[in-house]
Amino acid sequence: MSKYLSPRLSSLKEYTPGEQPRDKKYIKLNTNESPYPPSPKAIAAITRSQTEDLRLYSDPECKNLKQAIADYYNVSIQNVFVSNGSDESLNFFFMAFCDEERKVCFPEISYGFYKVFAGLYGLDYEAIPLKSDFSIEPSDYMNRGKNIVIANPNAPTGLALSINDIEAIVKSNPDYIVVIDEAYVDFGAESAVELTKKYNNLMVVQTFSKSRSLAGARLGFAIADSEIIKDLEKIKYSTNPYNINRLTLLLGEAAISDTEYFELNRDSVIKAREYTESELIKLGFTVLPSKTNFVFAKSDDISGEKLYKELKDRGILVRHFNDKKICEYNRITIGTMEEMKTFIKTVKEIIG
Amino acid sequence: MSKYLSPRLSSLKEYTPGEQPRDKKYIKLNTNESPYPPSPKAIAAITRSQTEDLRLYSDPECKNLKQAIADYYNVSIQNVFVSNGSDESLNFFFMAFCDEERKVCFPEISYGFYKVFAGLYGLDYEAIPLKSDFSIEPSDYMNRGKNIVIANPNAPTGLALSINDIEAIVKSNPDYIVVIDEAYVDFGAESAVELTKKYNNLMVVQTFSKSRSLAGARLGFAIADSEIIKDLEKIKYSTNPYNINRLTLLLGEAAISDTEYFELNRDSVIKAREYTESELIKLGFTVLPSKTNFVFAKSDDISGEKLYKELKDRGILVRHFNDKKICEYNRITIGTMEEMKTFIKTVKEIIG
Repeated sequence: MSKYLSPRLSSLKEYTPGEQPRDKKYIKLNTNESPYPPSPKAIAAITRSQTEDLRLYSDPECKNLKQAIADYYNVSIQNVFVSNGSDESLNFFFMAFCDEERKVCFPEISYGFYKVFAGLYGLDYEAIPLKSDFSIEPSDYMNRGKNIVIANPNAPTGLALSINDIEAIVKSNPDYIVVIDEAYVDFGAESAVELTKKYNNLMVVQTFSKSRSLAGARLGFAIADSEIIKDLEKIKYSTNPYNINRLTLLLGEAAISDTEYFELNRDSVIKAREYTESELIKLGFTVLPSKTNFVFAKSDDISGEKLYKELKDRGILVRHFNDKKICEYNRITIGTMEEMKTFIKTVKEIIG
Repeated sequence: MSKYLSPRLSSLKEYTPGEQPRDKKYIKLNTNESPYPPSPKAIAAITRSQTEDLRLYSDPECKNLKQAIADYYNVSIQNVFVSNGSDESLNFFFMAFCDEERKVCFPEISYGFYKVFAGLYGLDYEAIPLKSDFSIEPSDYMNRGKNIVIANPNAPTGLALSINDIEAIVKSNPDYIVVIDEAYVDFGAESAVELTKKYNNLMVVQTFSKSRSLAGARLGFAIADSEIIKDLEKIKYSTNPYNINRLTLLLGEAAISDTEYFELNRDSVIKAREYTESELIKLGFTVLPSKTNFVFAKSDDISGEKLYKELKDRGILVRHFNDKKICEYNRITIGTMEEMKTFIKTVKEIIG
């Protein structure tokens, strides 16, 4: 820390991304990436001519991409905000809408970045415990009198709330914003996008990183009432008006238009997930019922940390969290069926 | 504005980027882009295989790109921070280092974003007037007792301070950070990068948008003492750890390594600038001596606004600012020699 850092940030605890070791080639099941490349249509959009045009700034209004997202979700372009990864949408939510008077709450076990954003803006957040089965109790969020952020499905548990529960939470907090972070929604949960037409306090956040195979392109978006979108745009134009690069705009537009390829890959991931779940259960694991592209599982025969390390030694990366409430578990990204077969075979070797 | 926006942001005035009209094809001399495509080596770096790998997150440490920048500037990798455009480096500076106790100042006429960042973080900034010839008076910044941001060369004036003046400013403010925003430095001014080895309170910010022809790729960087870089990294890992997409990392690495192509284009821009300056002077314009890829010029025969509009009607976009201290001027980006000849010819037609 330099002596110039503002004291208000001196105790800031930053986010720790999943490890990206370079010592050898791993089967990478630790950061919830897709095992499949982006849509061939997205890849075809990156022409030499488009690359040459990188000399020009990107469209700050991101019109074509916004229109493609609006078309896909049957909303108006005024209801769409696009961002440099969904993290940027989340960041702008915390910056724009949360303060001393408008506090924020989220599940105690969830995407680890929520509390980092809260720390960054000096917010006195509330972390609401999960139930003993790791599910979210919807009534904990009713009439809460605070802004709310819920990942649905939640991470790293993989568990989803029903759309009725989401609606009840949104409806009971009309004076506060409810953010539903749907990073994993495409793998089996129901999106709340339709509800944004009915409730002006709902902000749905999604990403191209998982189901659209574009983690490395950095693209996320939010869908909400147009007044909320205007506020997010104000923050964007006050931090980084050209937040999305030209090639990512093209990639996103092509990717969201290729429904066939999207569904094919999603179905493959779901199939490999079902295989992984059933095999782990056969091996005596406790596996939470996942609606995502990962499973969260523990064994009574081996500690979460030991399994993580043994897998890593054998060339397979999964994500282990040190938090004592979940340290017996590992979060295992669903790769190809072949990768998951190798994973299961390796787990068998480890637990003997 | 939604009813949910934090009141602290209710009077926030966002940045207005240069216009990007789509009604017809313009000669675009309004946003200081390069008229030349990125380095052929950068374009060649975008292979099909790299595009397929977009399914994977980008390297959050940006190691290869940082090393390439460090090599180019003969600094250590620990002295380099890379960002989503230089705007992100500037944003993080305001966020990390400025507060009620550590106020900030910058020239009254300069890059319009500085006061937007100050507004975003609720900072009581000081805007220091330029001299009557639009130059910066170095002694205004000596022993100032505040953080300082100076664009060198300054925009939209195009005027540069000497490296000795920069050093005197940095040296006289050891308890505050001095940011030198060198977006345009490659076109004729002297960089302060070497001084970062001597002073731990100097942060030099640069961009790939202008001299490296990568405005649409969104890439900037900062060079400073490693403790300042660590603070910037802390902010990055608390907002958007994967702030730079995979393709931009590759483009930047290739572009900064292609010195020959860079120098060729830079020299062409300087030559076209010298042509433009001398022709405008022949036409009776006042032209500030530019060290950038634009000129700032006014005519006694036509108002700045009228010239801007007449040029636009004839298919040439330049940048006009409404601020009354500079509204008689236009900022004209230097394009190709052919474009500048068309520009001069058109100005002649307009002023008769």
